[in-house]
Amino acid sequence: MRENIVIIGAVALGPKVACRCKRLNPEARVVMLDRGGRISYGGCGIPYYVSGDVSDADELQSTSFHMLRDAPFFRDIKGVEARPRTEAVRIDRAKKTVLTRNLDTGAEETLSYDKLVLATGSTPRALPIPGADLPGVHAVADLDAAIAIRAALTAGSVGRAVVVGAGFIGLEMAVALADMWGVETTVVEYAPGVLPTVLSPGLASMIERHMHEKDISFRLGGQVTRIEGDGKVERVAIKTPNGEEVMETDMVVMSVGVTPNTELARAAGLECSARGGVVVDGNMRTSDPSIYAGGDCAEIRNLVTGKPFFLPLGSLANRQGRVIGDNLCGISSRFPGAAGAWCVKLFEQNAAGVGLTLDAARRSGLDAFSIIVSQFDRAHFYPDKAFMFLELVAEHGTGRVLGVQGVCAMGDALVGRIGAVSALMPHRPTVEELSLLELPYSPPFNSAMDIVNVLGNVGGNVLAGRNKSIAPQEFARLFAERDGSDVFFLDCREHPNAEPYLKAYPGVWHNIPQGQLAGRLKEVPRDRKIVLVCNSGARSYEAFVTLAHAGYADVVNVAGGMATLRMAGADPKV
Amino acid sequence: MRENIVIIGAVALGPKVACRCKRLNPEARVVMLDRGGRISYGGCGIPYYVSGDVSDADELQSTSFHMLRDAPFFRDIKGVEARPRTEAVRIDRAKKTVLTRNLDTGAEETLSYDKLVLATGSTPRALPIPGADLPGVHAVADLDAAIAIRAALTAGSVGRAVVVGAGFIGLEMAVALADMWGVETTVVEYAPGVLPTVLSPGLASMIERHMHEKDISFRLGGQVTRIEGDGKVERVAIKTPNGEEVMETDMVVMSVGVTPNTELARAAGLECSARGGVVVDGNMRTSDPSIYAGGDCAEIRNLVTGKPFFLPLGSLANRQGRVIGDNLCGISSRFPGAAGAWCVKLFEQNAAGVGLTLDAARRSGLDAFSIIVSQFDRAHFYPDKAFMFLELVAEHGTGRVLGVQGVCAMGDALVGRIGAVSALMPHRPTVEELSLLELPYSPPFNSAMDIVNVLGNVGGNVLAGRNKSIAPQEFARLFAERDGSDVFFLDCREHPNAEPYLKAYPGVWHNIPQGQLAGRLKEVPRDRKIVLVCNSGARSYEAFVTLAHAGYADVVNVAGGMATLRMAGADPKV
Repeated sequence: MRENIVIIGAVALGPKVACRCKRLNPEARVVMLDRGGRISYGGCGIPYYVSGDVSDADELQSTSFHMLRDAPFFRDIKGVEARPRTEAVRIDRAKKTVLTRNLDTGAEETLSYDKLVLATGSTPRALPIPGADLPGVHAVADLDAAIAIRAALTAGSVGRAVVVGAGFIGLEMAVALADMWGVETTVVEYAPGVLPTVLSPGLASMIERHMHEKDISFRLGGQVTRIEGDGKVERVAIKTPNGEEVMETDMVVMSVGVTPNTELARAAGLECSARGGVVVDGNMRTSDPSIYAGGDCAEIRNLVTGKPFFLPLGSLANRQGRVIGDNLCGISSRFPGAAGAWCVKLFEQNAAGVGLTLDAARRSGLDAFSIIVSQFDRAHFYPDKAFMFLELVAEHGTGRVLGVQGVCAMGDALVGRIGAVSALMPHRPTVEELSLLELPYSPPFNSAMDIVNVLGNVGGNVLAGRNKSIAPQEFARLFAERDGSDVFFLDCREHPNAEPYLKAYPGVWHNIPQGQLAGRLKEVPRDRKIVLVCNSGARSYEAFVTLAHAGYADVVNVAGGMATLRMAGADPKV
Repeated sequence: MRENIVIIGAVALGPKVACRCKRLNPEARVVMLDRGGRISYGGCGIPYYVSGDVSDADELQSTSFHMLRDAPFFRDIKGVEARPRTEAVRIDRAKKTVLTRNLDTGAEETLSYDKLVLATGSTPRALPIPGADLPGVHAVADLDAAIAIRAALTAGSVGRAVVVGAGFIGLEMAVALADMWGVETTVVEYAPGVLPTVLSPGLASMIERHMHEKDISFRLGGQVTRIEGDGKVERVAIKTPNGEEVMETDMVVMSVGVTPNTELARAAGLECSARGGVVVDGNMRTSDPSIYAGGDCAEIRNLVTGKPFFLPLGSLANRQGRVIGDNLCGISSRFPGAAGAWCVKLFEQNAAGVGLTLDAARRSGLDAFSIIVSQFDRAHFYPDKAFMFLELVAEHGTGRVLGVQGVCAMGDALVGRIGAVSALMPHRPTVEELSLLELPYSPPFNSAMDIVNVLGNVGGNVLAGRNKSIAPQEFARLFAERDGSDVFFLDCREHPNAEPYLKAYPGVWHNIPQGQLAGRLKEVPRDRKIVLVCNSGARSYEAFVTLAHAGYADVVNVAGGMATLRMAGADPKV
């Protein structure tokens, strides 16, 4: 069937659609255009190109067998007509045409289509502040922008940099600047913590602390109000809760989110959502049945909330691309949506997650709670291991898993756990399913009782009222307010572990090893709030059971224990 | 509720049941006995103790906070009465009693129970051959056996060893002997490949070749017929397809599987299966409603076949233990069964899997096929990465996923992928669900199109008849028989990759780069079987599409490409 297929956008989704189409229907004529000069590259690799881990920008645009994915490659190898530096000016849905313009020659051409695909991607948001257009202010927009950043670094003209935004790209760029190039880097973030949309305050502070140890400075709760300089960036003004600060800098990297590119779609009268994305159905089809959209420019269904959301990720674009390719060729195929799985490597720490954070769940109107569990990522007797911190967000009543997030120095191990939970998310798992989750087991890889199982177990105990836990921030608040309160802090570890705290906080910090608790109940007041703590949360849970059984009413357990408090910087200083 | 709970067996399941019980019902009296002197240890860690990775046997018996889990620990910390060196002689179901005997004093005692739990575990199978009882012949039965093996190694009296059985424990023990202690080690396995029940021949040969490179010798298809020596092991006789071989050795390690310990259950008239395990229902209850069983002594439901099977793994024992603990305390809890997830680290390679191999699926009467995919475990432009090999076993017609197995030098990355598939298995996923599987994505951890998605895509293409692939062994067979056949071997890579093969096999090996194929169809005969190969299977699939579109009927594609052939040792030698 000789069909004309036109694809607007040729970075991630576009090429996938084009290639799938040509394989399913080799007779089809597939034309793919892009405003950029470079096409079909791994945009997610930009921070690794800036850092130097990836030595040449071409590598991001190459196949694993080292062929450059440029227009000749698509023509010769894929049978796809790729047109870089070509803009789609206007869609005429009635005539089924796209007016295109070559950005170098200005030549215009009208392309007919039977089916049209919008793969127009997204654009970094710009802050409407003075000086945002000064040379030296960069957005991580595309490979060309990355090349400009790296050129400045290579030239040695960048000693200090300010990154605006502590999302994935902002933090990855901060690492790239500081780690390889030794740039003195400050990250300014409007929210009170890093990765604010995907991590709880407790886990976020673990990442922030680690990056701080690696000499990244943070201005959390801060806002860049203007950029100054004489012909190029020289200073930024940052408004923080403590006032305004002016900081000298040689470079500003803006990473305050992206906006879906929907101008063409809107101009053509296609349905777009208020928040910005092109609206598509389960087949990735827009309100015009001849037009599909996917990737960063489209909204998809959130599998947890059931509502549309915007999740610009190359991995989703690839999977959506295949679905669109199928549908274009008569194979009915659906994209079910996404639970929002993500991961990020930052120096020697890693964070990953899926689904909603506690904040996001509550903002969605769900009656949610969260718990943190800490445990070695593999058998505790195995030589190479790291503590893993996982947070479960679940719904009261139903016990439904709404999200899991985590931090661990062993990145693959963490991503593996989150991947397993993510695989379950379309099936709306309950906490009990985490308890029973079957993971491959051997001591070099995990414990007989994997941390995901433990997460389910602790969640189940909380749901059933058999355990009550508090997050690191809540512990820190209670401890900070200890003078005016009657909270009884009870350390359930053996004496040597508790000793420094007993010395530092006499009368406040108490110690009864968990094994002795049942016999020493006299020492535990019945009229005060009891906060139990051990190293990982396991023994304090046993202590919780003992106290609950003895009729104590107001007892809480620090989930994840001192290991978690310490990692989050919420432990009492000794 | 003051209930008497007796648990027979105190290694993995027993302690978990006991502790869960005491937490749910602190009033219960819980007695746990075991024939062994050591209780509550991580038996799966034995090879790492033998290797020296774990320096002291106590570590396997300790909590993560370094408390030894012995009888006083269970008494003081858990409120559980643990009785090591105590045998359960007989169960009287009518009277609800267990007759016990102290193995040191011979003292007998009758314990009453309200509920009884059988956690009797399994025993290594012994080969009924002459000399099997000679000193120096070891089974990996328990921690004491491991201590004996390590003592012999430490004494320096072991220069050569023979391991009988190439299952998980056999191979892990071979690594432990060879890697740390420099013991010249030979593995004898009755089946034609290593890990025969869980890996296809193609993947198995990858592991075998790697271990061989690390100086492990193999006698596959071999059988130890007798062990000889004057007061201790000196020689073993091995029958192979090529005759008998007598090999000198200082140690024999037997690891030819385990048998569930069901003597007590059978004597008490509880239902046991022909294959050996105690039969339990979804609540892990035996045919006597007051008696539960779990762990290595019980059969569970295979989630893929729906039939009972026997899977002795510490991780399953732990999860079953919680289920039994719940049920003992009035919380109805079900253990759904297992898909059979596993993983193993062997020198610098790793294997993992879940579900059925192609052989196992066919033996179960399923109309199954398999494909192998090879791809970097993370973004191909990321510096540290390894090729991963995944094999999908799926059902024709339904497209149901029956199993996935894999090999990769990056162990956590492999285990993460298998874990994600394993999480899905209770939901009976189709190949399409693998295509759409949402995994956390970032270049340091995976590709935008993860290998699991690719596995689903390739599987989907095969199901739809859009791709036809052959396994490494099938390629090797076709290539070995090339002289008498009319097979046309077509290398779709660029010329420099193909050149050595063209020189070595003139007239047999042909080369048309995939991008040129459509224009050079004249060179491809229409009356011969075409075998397409590239590096990873991606370009040969494109070539397959081109040939199929041009009307070629008998074309196959080497799934996983030369990378897979090479890793499996099935590539033509050049």
